[in-house]
Amino acid sequence: MSRGFKSLTPADKAVAEFLSKLSHKPPVVEVPLGEALGRYLARDIIADVDVPPFDRAAFDGYAVRSIDTLGATRTNPVVLKVVGRAGPGRPFEGVVREGEAVEIATGAPLPEGADAVVPYEEAAERGGAVEIYRPVPRYYYVSRRGEDLSKGELVLKAGTRLRPWDLGVLASLGMSRVPIYLVRAAVISTGDELVEVEEVSGGAPPPGKVVNSTRFALIGLFREAGADAEYLGLVPDDEEAIRRALERALSGFDIVATTGGASVGGPDATHKAVSSIADFYVRGIAVRPGRPNGAAVVGGKPVIVLSGFPVAAVVGFEIFARPAILKMVGGRPEPQPTVRGVLTRRITTPINVRTYARVRAYVKEGKVYVEPLAVTGSGVLSTLTRGNAILVVPENREGYDEGEEVEVQLIRELEAV
Amino acid sequence: MSRGFKSLTPADKAVAEFLSKLSHKPPVVEVPLGEALGRYLARDIIADVDVPPFDRAAFDGYAVRSIDTLGATRTNPVVLKVVGRAGPGRPFEGVVREGEAVEIATGAPLPEGADAVVPYEEAAERGGAVEIYRPVPRYYYVSRRGEDLSKGELVLKAGTRLRPWDLGVLASLGMSRVPIYLVRAAVISTGDELVEVEEVSGGAPPPGKVVNSTRFALIGLFREAGADAEYLGLVPDDEEAIRRALERALSGFDIVATTGGASVGGPDATHKAVSSIADFYVRGIAVRPGRPNGAAVVGGKPVIVLSGFPVAAVVGFEIFARPAILKMVGGRPEPQPTVRGVLTRRITTPINVRTYARVRAYVKEGKVYVEPLAVTGSGVLSTLTRGNAILVVPENREGYDEGEEVEVQLIRELEAV
Repeated sequence: MSRGFKSLTPADKAVAEFLSKLSHKPPVVEVPLGEALGRYLARDIIADVDVPPFDRAAFDGYAVRSIDTLGATRTNPVVLKVVGRAGPGRPFEGVVREGEAVEIATGAPLPEGADAVVPYEEAAERGGAVEIYRPVPRYYYVSRRGEDLSKGELVLKAGTRLRPWDLGVLASLGMSRVPIYLVRAAVISTGDELVEVEEVSGGAPPPGKVVNSTRFALIGLFREAGADAEYLGLVPDDEEAIRRALERALSGFDIVATTGGASVGGPDATHKAVSSIADFYVRGIAVRPGRPNGAAVVGGKPVIVLSGFPVAAVVGFEIFARPAILKMVGGRPEPQPTVRGVLTRRITTPINVRTYARVRAYVKEGKVYVEPLAVTGSGVLSTLTRGNAILVVPENREGYDEGEEVEVQLIRELEAV
Repeated sequence: MSRGFKSLTPADKAVAEFLSKLSHKPPVVEVPLGEALGRYLARDIIADVDVPPFDRAAFDGYAVRSIDTLGATRTNPVVLKVVGRAGPGRPFEGVVREGEAVEIATGAPLPEGADAVVPYEEAAERGGAVEIYRPVPRYYYVSRRGEDLSKGELVLKAGTRLRPWDLGVLASLGMSRVPIYLVRAAVISTGDELVEVEEVSGGAPPPGKVVNSTRFALIGLFREAGADAEYLGLVPDDEEAIRRALERALSGFDIVATTGGASVGGPDATHKAVSSIADFYVRGIAVRPGRPNGAAVVGGKPVIVLSGFPVAAVVGFEIFARPAILKMVGGRPEPQPTVRGVLTRRITTPINVRTYARVRAYVKEGKVYVEPLAVTGSGVLSTLTRGNAILVVPENREGYDEGEEVEVQLIRELEAV
């Protein structure tokens, strides 16, 4: 080829090199527990108390001494005297002695002397006494102190992305504040053809101009990935202006993504600006769409240089930005929804290039089908709204045949036709 | 059974009846596009402009009249005069005439007269002229006006949960604000055994008390489901106090969830309060954990009555609250990450009860295994942090055998051992 990239770097190689050069860690901040959802935990959490803090009933019934129930049957029940009631937050303050029982609700502390709970189903109370219909072993239907979390135990590892139940576990440990990594992401757009949506509201853009849609996709991706994301605005296609914008962004953010100005043959002011400040820079990736995407490291921080075309930028985010965030916080990739289905027609892709094909996955008569969407360019964002899944064709394949079963990543629910 | 629920309602039946009684719609508000991430679109979006708004180059190269390239080969190239350059936002203002070409960058408007793009790879420019090495058809490497979105087309359906690329598509249409359903969720906790984490910070709870962890799990689940969620505080185990709290919540929120006070045999003040105001109320669900969970409808709005035990509450949220939100906004369930693996030991569950078993899924020597976690009660939240997946055992099974292949829902990444 006379112009364009002289050679393309395989995606895995580009990512591995890029990640190995990253040394920045985002700041650690303590936030109230309720604000930690979706954030990355900044240190290992070791239980410093037992949860539950006492033995408690795991079922509604009667707290008893298990030894008293020996030999009980439905025809020959053991009869115990009911000496009190216990509820959660309303413990029975006395002691359960030989021949005695306490009616107990799930969650209530097990009274002193008792060591098991007989469920209502195996008992019947009549006039101050309860018939027990079966023998129960020690700790039957008892949640032991420390059973949920025991003191000294590693509860959650640093880098864990906090889900709703994790917050519950941290609350159980008495933590009202939690240390998280505050990942601050900045997005800078370039492209003299761009106009902001706020300036065209309701109408069509001026002749020759297109709306900057990529910024919204990127800000959304950063937020979904657990980062705070801020849009820093549209910078002219000018190397010096872009360099200044990058330097400003790098001083206050943990990861910076640019869009536009990365192409070969077209406007490449972003590329030149990044080149002039980068300690490491890989670009020209063997990925379709998204060949012009690149990733740089400046002072240990990641700078993701993305195509101005929205679909190419989304692919570049997945390849470089998400792994960079996980590397910085010590996080692990989240599981993705996938489905297997039969291709409705052949899909042809170039060898030695990883292709992200947009597809429509649907169920028909109980069987899943995958239909490739026709695409001409990397700008056709509607393939992500018309389609509902991505088929990643690896470098060592030239596509898949009609009728072949493939696994796709669902970005929206499966359609039913 | 002498106490407890007289009969249990199958989960599907309970949910279907509950949903059929819901008539409330959350308010529709217009928010700036950047704030719409993860919200539910409140109306169908029809394109009122073409995207792209003009024909443009889909590749870097030369804009030509396709007819001029007829018969071109590498040995016998067609030679065209280069009359200008076009970039995105920098259109070529003239007309491409017979024998002429314009160098063009991806995204630039196709100049008048030209109808195709010859990529750099198939051309070579020398001194003001370009050699073309192959014939190209009309619209070769041209993104046609309206190719991405065409005027009048249904772009996104009401009820769609907005993902990052959806925001990009809406921006392309010139929408700087977007109508979404604002789903306001309230959580009320009850339980005299509870103490708030803010009151025990750092230490263990007072004797007989446990920290209210369920509130954090629920608020987190509501937020992950696209709702605003507010915690309204701890209400004493008192029917009248709970009724007043419910009525206040129902006046300002679209969905209300309570925790605690729903059991049979234990404290049931919440149950009584809900009963006294509900138009519809189902409780006692054939689900484990989460039998005491229930769902009510008050003035068309959903009230989810959940167990105070965190894992039971999480299960109840999935059974009642998430479908209620989707019903109110016309949304569709999101795809869940799943994996198939081999059970490492038998799991036994009761017939006619749907069991949500917490499991650990891991990869060993390239094969996926599923290990059931030992659980005694519905309060053991750590099973959701120790485990990484849920195995739902349906009502018509009494479990699965060791060695059987099962599909589980991943709530965290697969472990590698």
